[in-house]
Amino acid sequence: MAHTEPGYITDKQALLNRLKRVEGQVRGLQRMVDEETYCIDILTQVSAATKALENVALSLLDQHLHHCVTDAARNRGPEADEKLAEATAAIARLVRS
Amino acid sequence: MAHTEPGYITDKQALLNRLKRVEGQVRGLQRMVDEETYCIDILTQVSAATKALENVALSLLDQHLHHCVTDAARNRGPEADEKLAEATAAIARLVRS
Amino acid sequence: MAHTEPGYITDKQALLNRLKRVEGQVRGLQRMVDEETYCIDILTQVSAATKALENVALSLLDQHLHHCVTDAARNRGPEADEKLAEATAAIARLVRS
Amino acid sequence: MAHTEPGYITDKQALLNRLKRVEGQVRGLQRMVDEETYCIDILTQVSAATKALENVALSLLDQHLHHCVTDAARNRGPEADEKLAEATAAIARLVRS
Repeated sequence: MAHTEPGYITDKQALLNRLKRVEGQVRGLQRMVDEETYCIDILTQVSAATKALENVALSLLDQHLHHCVTDAARNRGPEADEKLAEATAAIARLVRS
Repeated sequence: MAHTEPGYITDKQALLNRLKRVEGQVRGLQRMVDEETYCIDILTQVSAATKALENVALSLLDQHLHHCVTDAARNRGPEADEKLAEATAAIARLVRS
Repeated sequence: MAHTEPGYITDKQALLNRLKRVEGQVRGLQRMVDEETYCIDILTQVSAATKALENVALSLLDQHLHHCVTDAARNRGPEADEKLAEATAAIARLVRS
Repeated sequence: MAHTEPGYITDKQALLNRLKRVEGQVRGLQRMVDEETYCIDILTQVSAATKALENVALSLLDQHLHHCVTDAARNRGPEADEKLAEATAAIARLVRS
């Protein structure tokens, strides 16, 4: 499948910044474990990092629907169904992760 | 509250290793975005990283129940209720993140 | 907004059957509580009922993308953006519930 | 295993009332599908019913920790580990459903 620019291209830097922050959160978790911080305080930060990752996923999904799925729908043909099936499978994984 | 060793002390290195791997996954996500990888492939990896973080949380919670909550239960007194309330709140955050 | 047939129209009976089963699961939970069944056994059934509800949501979402969002995308115009925004908000609620 | 009163015994009626409400919500979903309501509106109600089920699970879990797990911890012996393992497995199912 000839790869065109991804749907998130206009959000690329924003996504990278968010993922940088998640990386910082995960390193912060390592410090907390290393310093033997109380379990509950670490759990609170794990939930925060998980939520941040989910927000990255939701904005990727939004861009995918707006661009890849919408373009394929307009072009009609089998690619539209393929894109929709991929999107639904990604949503299911997200709901179950 | 005098801080005793955390419940996860025997798992400390294993937790650090897992968090190191999650950090690697997040940096991998940054590379995928930077290389403009197809959205769905990135979403698949976000779900994997989210699941890895959840596993860290579940093992922290397990250790917390086994040690902090169990010890407090045996010592009776108000600390037991406090620990249980903290554990339930952490579980709720985890379920909703 | 003039209401056209919903995206799930071809799945209507299947959806109703699944929701009937979920209703049966919830009544089963009531019986378990009434009969003072062990907590963990009830929790197992609550997770099963929650998963069944999620499956209903995922198939509704799939049909919504395939029909309502795809039709709006093909018609271009502001309705497409509105449908996409609604879909992303519904996905976010699903991920966080 | 001789079954004693479940941990939720003091909350029994409150749990039954909540599950009655969830049953009503699920029947409401059936009506919405039957009346061919717009997909997004149904999805909103599915998320609400899912959240209500999660709240039932969280309060069952809270009672289980406060009573079954705490009593077993105080009695020491192998039953404590069994109860804790059950609780962690139930939490994992809840997080993943």
